[in-house]
Amino acid sequence: MTSRICVELGPRSYDVHLGTFAPEETAAAIADAFDRETTGLAVLVDGGLGALSPRVAPLVEALRRRLPRVERLDLPAGEASKTLSEIGRTVEWLAAQGFDRKAAVVGLGGGATTDHAGFAASIYLRGVDFATVPTTLLAMVDASVGGKTGVDLEAGKNLVGTFHQPRVVVADLAFLDTLPARERRAGLAEVVKCGFIADPELLAACERAPEDVAGKLGSDWIHGLVAGAVRVKADVVASDERESGRRAILNFGHTLGHALEAESRYALLHGEAVALGMMSALRIGAAMGVGSPGLVERGRAVLTRLGLPTDEARRIDDAVLARVKVDKKRRGAAIRFVLCPAVGQTQMVDLTPADIAAHLRQAGPKA
Amino acid sequence: MTSRICVELGPRSYDVHLGTFAPEETAAAIADAFDRETTGLAVLVDGGLGALSPRVAPLVEALRRRLPRVERLDLPAGEASKTLSEIGRTVEWLAAQGFDRKAAVVGLGGGATTDHAGFAASIYLRGVDFATVPTTLLAMVDASVGGKTGVDLEAGKNLVGTFHQPRVVVADLAFLDTLPARERRAGLAEVVKCGFIADPELLAACERAPEDVAGKLGSDWIHGLVAGAVRVKADVVASDERESGRRAILNFGHTLGHALEAESRYALLHGEAVALGMMSALRIGAAMGVGSPGLVERGRAVLTRLGLPTDEARRIDDAVLARVKVDKKRRGAAIRFVLCPAVGQTQMVDLTPADIAAHLRQAGPKA
Repeated sequence: MTSRICVELGPRSYDVHLGTFAPEETAAAIADAFDRETTGLAVLVDGGLGALSPRVAPLVEALRRRLPRVERLDLPAGEASKTLSEIGRTVEWLAAQGFDRKAAVVGLGGGATTDHAGFAASIYLRGVDFATVPTTLLAMVDASVGGKTGVDLEAGKNLVGTFHQPRVVVADLAFLDTLPARERRAGLAEVVKCGFIADPELLAACERAPEDVAGKLGSDWIHGLVAGAVRVKADVVASDERESGRRAILNFGHTLGHALEAESRYALLHGEAVALGMMSALRIGAAMGVGSPGLVERGRAVLTRLGLPTDEARRIDDAVLARVKVDKKRRGAAIRFVLCPAVGQTQMVDLTPADIAAHLRQAGPKA
Repeated sequence: MTSRICVELGPRSYDVHLGTFAPEETAAAIADAFDRETTGLAVLVDGGLGALSPRVAPLVEALRRRLPRVERLDLPAGEASKTLSEIGRTVEWLAAQGFDRKAAVVGLGGGATTDHAGFAASIYLRGVDFATVPTTLLAMVDASVGGKTGVDLEAGKNLVGTFHQPRVVVADLAFLDTLPARERRAGLAEVVKCGFIADPELLAACERAPEDVAGKLGSDWIHGLVAGAVRVKADVVASDERESGRRAILNFGHTLGHALEAESRYALLHGEAVALGMMSALRIGAAMGVGSPGLVERGRAVLTRLGLPTDEARRIDDAVLARVKVDKKRRGAAIRFVLCPAVGQTQMVDLTPADIAAHLRQAGPKA
């Protein structure tokens, strides 16, 4: 089974290919998406991935058969690549290779790698084309769609970056074999989020998760989940490419999620932090009369079934709330906070960190 | 005398204000250009400028009277600010100040400062508004219009950056008092360029330069020159914002100019390098039958009158030509090179560094 989902962005529209693909198929999808005059291809590979996956080297070889001057650069593994100094190394390398404006970049790896690749592509020579081959579940359902690129600062995650849409995304589910079970589970948090904010059927599919979630990622079940999440995100992004309005609903669970993730010094995976952030948002909603205790329990049940943490109440302290201040979604004094009044719906409220703390206390500690 | 020139870019259109302005006038133009919800303003100041100009501190104070949370950061002077690591310092500072997406950045200084400010603004929180107050002649006539931002790499100048249009540009000619005579003269090279590629009247105005060019920069003559150059650039940029076609004509004199500038390790000022690059381009054109020896001599005469160097023939060697290889205008093997067949006209040709060397030899050494 393969799916092709179009992200409708006018001249910047692109397809997300989803399925299990031979290297030739992935290479063809990438080559077809670029301008025929492409003069070279920089393949930026997630540091740990080459050793983990037998699919990387054949894909690079397949790209070499279709495109001129294909060069590979292995980045530091995961989040370690998301710094401005690593971006500096990559762009110096691109220049040293002599890549010009008609060259293109492919990011092959998890979300950190595709964010790094997209940011480097967006600033090298003031912007060259890029494509992504996300290899983690989180990258497939989240980073793959929307064109957000960027790196972290000392002050917080993703505080610098650009909007730069890829020409194509090839999500090859076979790469999920490289993932530890914990990362597979974490990736499902963003699928749950898409269900809550926009797609009751998708949330129901999450609730039908097999007992052995981590073992089922090659199945039609996971294909359906990834496709559903990509469709939700594509639909939202198409209506608000630069996050001036509706796109903010995708931040459901993320305001506190990012703060928890940072305060844990990234001991929490992004998806785990988002799971905790969603639980907080559901509890805050219930305390404000937006949503209900029943919705809180539905969230707790589905996240627990997927093996994700829900014990945010004991984790959110003053240090976490202080982190919310540097969240990039902050507009002036108030934070735009996303609530979910019912499955498939969202409501934006302006809250201060003090408001958040008060509502969480009112909702009572449940872990 | 004041002029207001609109750069027509649809929703990204903006005005260039040109004249001699009181701090309150500059502050008003900046405040009016930003969204009413602006939550703060980061004023990035060219390192050496604060000590040089009595106009900086009053302008910052005037901005404080009109906008909330105005904070000032002095950058390293000039080109030293154009590195990714300096960008890192700036964006960490922006984050440490708590500036959010509705904050804005002002770049106050020469082209290096406004390029730095624009790039930092374009990537901080994936893009905040910015404005520029160019204080050098070069920055007024060149960097002020077009939205090109960026920094240098080891491999060459301006190899990373973005397109990010300012909301307003205030070119206050009184700042030109801070400039050494050599920099004033260098800034005129881009005016000559605009004359050659698009505006015979502007070239004629350059040829009417008073003998004491450096002493006349506060006059109506310089106002007319800056206005003319800004109009040419605004017209070209409006027709091709992202440099996919016509905008490339602005590179007249720049392919070899950048190479000469880099090879001199920036002992040559940008405008001096562009003057030399234009002379080379005129000589290459004459050798190819595009243009004429008379045009070469007209270029030499006007540049000499303005106190700019024209002895490119003895400066262009293998090391300079090797630098052309990493020029970001290179598309594949061939370099798009801009020729000037007659004043006000341009013609693009594809040349290799070897072609360039051969044509320059054929044109004969004239220094």
